[in-house]
Amino acid sequence: MLSVLVESSARHAHVTKEHLAILFGEGHSLHNKRELSQPGQYLTEEKVRVEGPRGAIDRVSILGPERSATQVEVSLTDARVLGIKPPIRESGDVAGSTALKIIGPAGSIELAEGAIIAKRHIHLTPAVAEQHGLKDKQIVAVKIGGERGLIFNEVVCRVHANFSPAMHIDYDESNAAGLSGEVYGEVLA
Amino acid sequence: MLSVLVESSARHAHVTKEHLAILFGEGHSLHNKRELSQPGQYLTEEKVRVEGPRGAIDRVSILGPERSATQVEVSLTDARVLGIKPPIRESGDVAGSTALKIIGPAGSIELAEGAIIAKRHIHLTPAVAEQHGLKDKQIVAVKIGGERGLIFNEVVCRVHANFSPAMHIDYDESNAAGLSGEVYGEVLA
Repeated sequence: MLSVLVESSARHAHVTKEHLAILFGEGHSLHNKRELSQPGQYLTEEKVRVEGPRGAIDRVSILGPERSATQVEVSLTDARVLGIKPPIRESGDVAGSTALKIIGPAGSIELAEGAIIAKRHIHLTPAVAEQHGLKDKQIVAVKIGGERGLIFNEVVCRVHANFSPAMHIDYDESNAAGLSGEVYGEVLA
Repeated sequence: MLSVLVESSARHAHVTKEHLAILFGEGHSLHNKRELSQPGQYLTEEKVRVEGPRGAIDRVSILGPERSATQVEVSLTDARVLGIKPPIRESGDVAGSTALKIIGPAGSIELAEGAIIAKRHIHLTPAVAEQHGLKDKQIVAVKIGGERGLIFNEVVCRVHANFSPAMHIDYDESNAAGLSGEVYGEVLA
């Protein structure tokens, strides 16, 4: 049975080089604040404001490195504040997703699509996936124990050599499960 | 198999007659705005501000009727905003729970205890409980379908003749399960 570290992701943005220049000024580069569990991914010092038709959220972190498409991952709680209804998507799958305005210190962007609610997922290396008979895109269930214990269904496995084994959920999911400190989930394939 | 209506509870307060007089003025009574699913329970027009050591939340609804102990039910998301760590409790079980300030138009209360995070639960009538072999205080699991499907473990059954069958969860739990519209859960005893 596979036991996997469960990490909670706060709302965040990924940006293109082009959008970074608009938001923070020509020639600006992201400042690495802290490495994340996935190799090469990092929390940056850069923060933006996001605005929807109903409300705004300040100090949304940008995660590095730059990407080929700008994307904002929010929770359903955030989506209600902003007044938007983003689809539940895997990161990077932004076609036809929700519009949102992003405001930086140097300028702003009217994103036509890019706001999503992240589909809960597990990052796995090919070796760990093979060992446990799991495949890329496979949907599994993950059991979390404790006072607010639950079983997350509809968890997608993502397998890549650059990954480190970890499950990612958002703060609505994390709070629903009462997560606190270092928590591991049991993958029920 | 028992299928039960799942209702999402927003943050709310229950107040004593004494506290109502302090918050809204001597002789004030609660104004029924809308009946809730549980017979005799209602959303009122009255709203209060709650303040914790870190932040405050405005326009928290009071639910009627008055109770023998004042209590504020918040989500973990709310608790982080307020800067408090309330225990997960059944409604009414406030002994030793968290302190919180409540502010009304006429006055304020420094509640020494009363802030809780509601333990997810199912209201059942004795007839329905008996029909499905469920008992008061029994812990069951409830399966929710859909794109964010999950199984809530640690759901407590509460059986009383005055109840109407319904499961109550908070908005963190509701958002984690992607609830929208009228949703039913399957009770897995």
